Amino acid sequence: MSESKKLKDRMVEFTEDLQTRICSSLENFESSARFKSENWQRPGGGGGHTRVISGGEVFEKGGVNTSVVYGDLPEVMMKKFGSKSSKFFATGISLVIHPVSPQVPTVHANFRYFEQEDRAWFGGGADLTPYVPNEELAKHFHLELQKACNSFSESAYLDYKKQCDEYFYLPHRKEHRGIGGIFFDYLSDDLENTFKFVQRAGDSFISAYMPVVEKTCQLEYTERQKKFQLLRRGRYVEFNLVYDRGTKFGLETGGNSESILMSLPAVVHFEYKPELETNEDEKKLMNWIRNPKDWL
Amino acid sequence: MSESKKLKDRMVEFTEDLQTRICSSLENFESSARFKSENWQRPGGGGGHTRVISGGEVFEKGGVNTSVVYGDLPEVMMKKFGSKSSKFFATGISLVIHPVSPQVPTVHANFRYFEQEDRAWFGGGADLTPYVPNEELAKHFHLELQKACNSFSESAYLDYKKQCDEYFYLPHRKEHRGIGGIFFDYLSDDLENTFKFVQRAGDSFISAYMPVVEKTCQLEYTERQKKFQLLRRGRYVEFNLVYDRGTKFGLETGGNSESILMSLPAVVHFEYKPELETNEDEKKLMNWIRNPKDWL
Repeated sequence: MSESKKLKDRMVEFTEDLQTRICSSLENFESSARFKSENWQRPGGGGGHTRVISGGEVFEKGGVNTSVVYGDLPEVMMKKFGSKSSKFFATGISLVIHPVSPQVPTVHANFRYFEQEDRAWFGGGADLTPYVPNEELAKHFHLELQKACNSFSESAYLDYKKQCDEYFYLPHRKEHRGIGGIFFDYLSDDLENTFKFVQRAGDSFISAYMPVVEKTCQLEYTERQKKFQLLRRGRYVEFNLVYDRGTKFGLETGGNSESILMSLPAVVHFEYKPELETNEDEKKLMNWIRNPKDWL
Repeated sequence: MSESKKLKDRMVEFTEDLQTRICSSLENFESSARFKSENWQRPGGGGGHTRVISGGEVFEKGGVNTSVVYGDLPEVMMKKFGSKSSKFFATGISLVIHPVSPQVPTVHANFRYFEQEDRAWFGGGADLTPYVPNEELAKHFHLELQKACNSFSESAYLDYKKQCDEYFYLPHRKEHRGIGGIFFDYLSDDLENTFKFVQRAGDSFISAYMPVVEKTCQLEYTERQKKFQLLRRGRYVEFNLVYDRGTKFGLETGGNSESILMSLPAVVHFEYKPELETNEDEKKLMNWIRNPKDWL
């Protein structure tokens, strides 16, 4: 990719390439399930490329979506940004993967670039939601993200890890969504250098998550572990529908609702006052969920 | 109930009595499942009485809750009401019932009274969410609610039916939650007469819903009907978590989250672009869901 190209075009190329690489890496775990592709158009300008997998041996439901949208900024967003210019351009990749087995953690990642006449910024992150506590894999996931952050700045990992813990939080449960990762937004200084970081962070998603799947997807699991996963998925749904800014923004501004809501798991259980600490593993995991840990 | 008692005390008595009557009526359909009772205290004043049923032959999950809360109005609500007085008193009953069989519609109802130093009002309603189109039962449900409304005013039913259709709407799906019922709020004129109407509306919930259960709970159903129900329950979850004002208000003001979220079904399926019109029954139902109908 030549730097003579506009940053936004290079970001589009990067996200589309990352989408292909992520989908291929995930398909490697499947004997026959494959991602299906669908394009959608946005009436106001642009559109997206949705890739979804379902009914796999390893991945029950997942989506890896890219979009390139532009045009007039919706009124609500102009207010939110305190913006004078109404034209915008946004591109990004967003993914959520829900495995069948409770041994394999759910994962989410998102890397995006937003541009207006008078400013531009990057945002993104990746975070893990396990159902069985595995310290080694949690450390591995965070370590890979830390490596990408370290090349950007000394404080980046700790800063973005903290933002991740703060963002993926359900106040009504006093719980975090999972065991975190990194989350950053409105990075507008030195965009060339920030783009390098975003590319490394995107790449690090692959080296962070795939070994986790590799090491867990063959493990046996109990009926209770499956039940626990189904109940914990309920909290995932609660977070995404009640608090997630991307989901809210998408639904409010008439985004592609099927593409936005691909983040919801295929099967979810809701119980009144579910018992979520029936054994030592569950207690350990819930402790991680309630009290973010320094993994490294 | 003597009218010399304060209105709020009579409303508390009414909701608690209605709770008992509704739970008994529902238990009549069960051989052994029974509602379990739990009381909770609100730190700022008051509390509630939660009654939940789960794992029944007819009712998979349901809650019939009453609460009496008072104290200082949360800041957000003072702003919302444009209120000068910070003291409030609120009492009400709220229920959601999710049956096992897709032949038996899900139902929701809610009757509440709110009082501040300078004003007081009633709100409430009841609405039905079927998974199989049954015109006769839909008419019966609406007819019973209409009877309660007619005793209050000539225009009440049409007015409250319209408000119900408007309120239980998912803009991102261009769908209503179900086939409606009635919904009213901020009724502050002639409180004594309004209370009489609220009592009749509450009673009418029993005569509206129980015959629907009676006529459907023994019917056979197909695997496809069950699957359709699980997918449609996803939309129920979307409405309750994204749009429902009661849920949002409850979660934002630190309400009892388990009690608030008892409205979510036990088992839910989410699919990317689910096929919801695979046969004539589904097409008919989806048409009702998209285009509110005049039932009477």
